[in-house]
Amino acid sequence: MAQKNKSTDKLKELGEKVIRDIDKNRNPGIIVPIRALSNVIFNEKTKTLELGNKTSMRNFFNVAHAKKFLQTIEIASIIKKELLETDKHEHLRGVFYIAKRTIPGTDVNIVDDQTESDKIIEDLEVITGLSREQLHVSANKMGSMIGNIILVDSGDIIDCSKLGKGGYSVPSITDELIFKKINAKYILYMEKSAIFERLNEDKFWYKNNCILVTSQGQTTRGIRRLLQRLSEEENLPIYVLCDGDVYGAYIYSVVKYGSIALAHASERLTIPSVKYVGITMDDVIKYDLKKHLIKLTEQDTDRIKQVSQYDWFKSNKDWQRQFKMMKEFNGKVEIQALATKGVSFISEKYLPEKIKNKDFLD
Amino acid sequence: MAQKNKSTDKLKELGEKVIRDIDKNRNPGIIVPIRALSNVIFNEKTKTLELGNKTSMRNFFNVAHAKKFLQTIEIASIIKKELLETDKHEHLRGVFYIAKRTIPGTDVNIVDDQTESDKIIEDLEVITGLSREQLHVSANKMGSMIGNIILVDSGDIIDCSKLGKGGYSVPSITDELIFKKINAKYILYMEKSAIFERLNEDKFWYKNNCILVTSQGQTTRGIRRLLQRLSEEENLPIYVLCDGDVYGAYIYSVVKYGSIALAHASERLTIPSVKYVGITMDDVIKYDLKKHLIKLTEQDTDRIKQVSQYDWFKSNKDWQRQFKMMKEFNGKVEIQALATKGVSFISEKYLPEKIKNKDFLD
Repeated sequence: MAQKNKSTDKLKELGEKVIRDIDKNRNPGIIVPIRALSNVIFNEKTKTLELGNKTSMRNFFNVAHAKKFLQTIEIASIIKKELLETDKHEHLRGVFYIAKRTIPGTDVNIVDDQTESDKIIEDLEVITGLSREQLHVSANKMGSMIGNIILVDSGDIIDCSKLGKGGYSVPSITDELIFKKINAKYILYMEKSAIFERLNEDKFWYKNNCILVTSQGQTTRGIRRLLQRLSEEENLPIYVLCDGDVYGAYIYSVVKYGSIALAHASERLTIPSVKYVGITMDDVIKYDLKKHLIKLTEQDTDRIKQVSQYDWFKSNKDWQRQFKMMKEFNGKVEIQALATKGVSFISEKYLPEKIKNKDFLD
Repeated sequence: MAQKNKSTDKLKELGEKVIRDIDKNRNPGIIVPIRALSNVIFNEKTKTLELGNKTSMRNFFNVAHAKKFLQTIEIASIIKKELLETDKHEHLRGVFYIAKRTIPGTDVNIVDDQTESDKIIEDLEVITGLSREQLHVSANKMGSMIGNIILVDSGDIIDCSKLGKGGYSVPSITDELIFKKINAKYILYMEKSAIFERLNEDKFWYKNNCILVTSQGQTTRGIRRLLQRLSEEENLPIYVLCDGDVYGAYIYSVVKYGSIALAHASERLTIPSVKYVGITMDDVIKYDLKKHLIKLTEQDTDRIKQVSQYDWFKSNKDWQRQFKMMKEFNGKVEIQALATKGVSFISEKYLPEKIKNKDFLD
């Protein structure tokens, strides 16, 4: 409730500033921090991608700015009136539809395409310093959680150790979850829901006293925020399990350092302490998986070249070694390749050993 | 447990038949019902897509069959030994890796590509009359459920009316869920998880005494089986909510009648009684959504032509009318367009009215 009011106040401030401009016969303007690559820096100290301090001015009386100015005010108003004041949440797509109306007396729409409203919502994040979630705007929900954690979601007390094979379906906004009781040594986050089901069937979380979290593919903001909160508020180590390829490495790096597109939201999303548990090129040798390597495509090779040059990987010797081995083997490996050692090899041997020996990449 | 033994017995039968062939110096062979379009029929009486009774013989001593014969026996053996006898489940991808080994004394792999093992698993379904789920092979989990239903999943009692904004994360195999207590008038299934979150936030399921189920995009087998079981075992009506386009129509038709690729599994997946609640082209007129129509692409128009000619749509006047209107409007409409009438218009007016008036398409 407090947060809702804080968000409303921030948007009110924005509107009042514009009204003051009008009252004083000034050209109404909004200061917008620049979100382009030119203003994204990798902070070596905090180890996160951050926005620099370059800003631009968005003015009403400027042919190049007028439409974006209008979109900004209009969407800020929708968020304040339709979402925050009614305590409702809406998805990006829904906000687009609400904003997509014709400007009276013209045949011009406020927005024609969802990319326009999405961008304005990101602008509003940097303008107000609020996250999209604090503005009550969500994206698709994705992912599940299971393990020794009891949480409160909208008043319901949910014991994630009693949710069978399915688990708790993580909502798109996780800021408002309350952690009631946790009895776990760490969190294992995996990109593949298939592995989540394997580990859950083997009661891995019960035997190893941990919490399992999955999404499918790229990690959603909801999952990132959930993991960050578990790390910061509960001081739990987080281990990431991905395919042994450049895409897995990138998924890991986004969780750890952030992404260029969401550099402005790093503070609320990144987890510098997170570790990569596997699968690595060294695992390929150790567990004799060479014949299960999948040959790199040209796209893979290009992507390795690109990702290995990112600031946050460039000075990381362990990861450089991984990328080099991928190129030498001319191959990548999937987590499921471990099934060749036995269906439950991953939960009975691979993961317990790696975690016990702290055999992680940073 | 009983099912597990039944499945094991069926696979044993298959193996014993092959051994008998060998003992009698016959060419070992397996009878495989044909799964091609030429053997798929739309049963007008049961209103489902079914497999006809054409079969083919797969022999060991036949250059064209030998590899597939070997794959069939090998994968049947993996399923029996590694999954059924240990009471474990494995994903399609995992089964592929387990099967992907070199035939001793050769440099030939049993399978080189997952499409091969996937096909053999479908073959085994039709050979044994067991479903993939009964063979303990799963696919990606997808989807959530919330509402007045208490179920038992692997011994855990789960009350889906107490799972906050997230809900119950539906497992990939839903055959083994036990429905303990249900207090609902109907089930609303929607293709979009964004709409699920909207309706859940509005407590739609509570106010309207129903159960909400979602996946994202095409309906998984796990969700289809769950819905079918709720329909057949609990006698609950099921309403489907999709985008007003040909893809939404197709998603609906797969839930209702089945699909060509899974015609052999229709008996365990289709729900002839299911109704389509929206969104329709008539809704576009009634709720004044014409300006939110999205122009059809060439691909859309081609797909309308194709889908409208399917047996199960051809004689359906209401759907033919929908397809005709799509072409006349040269447009399609998304569920989210309803947000232009207000964030909660869908849960407060649109759905209650349509369901009360039984304004469905069959």
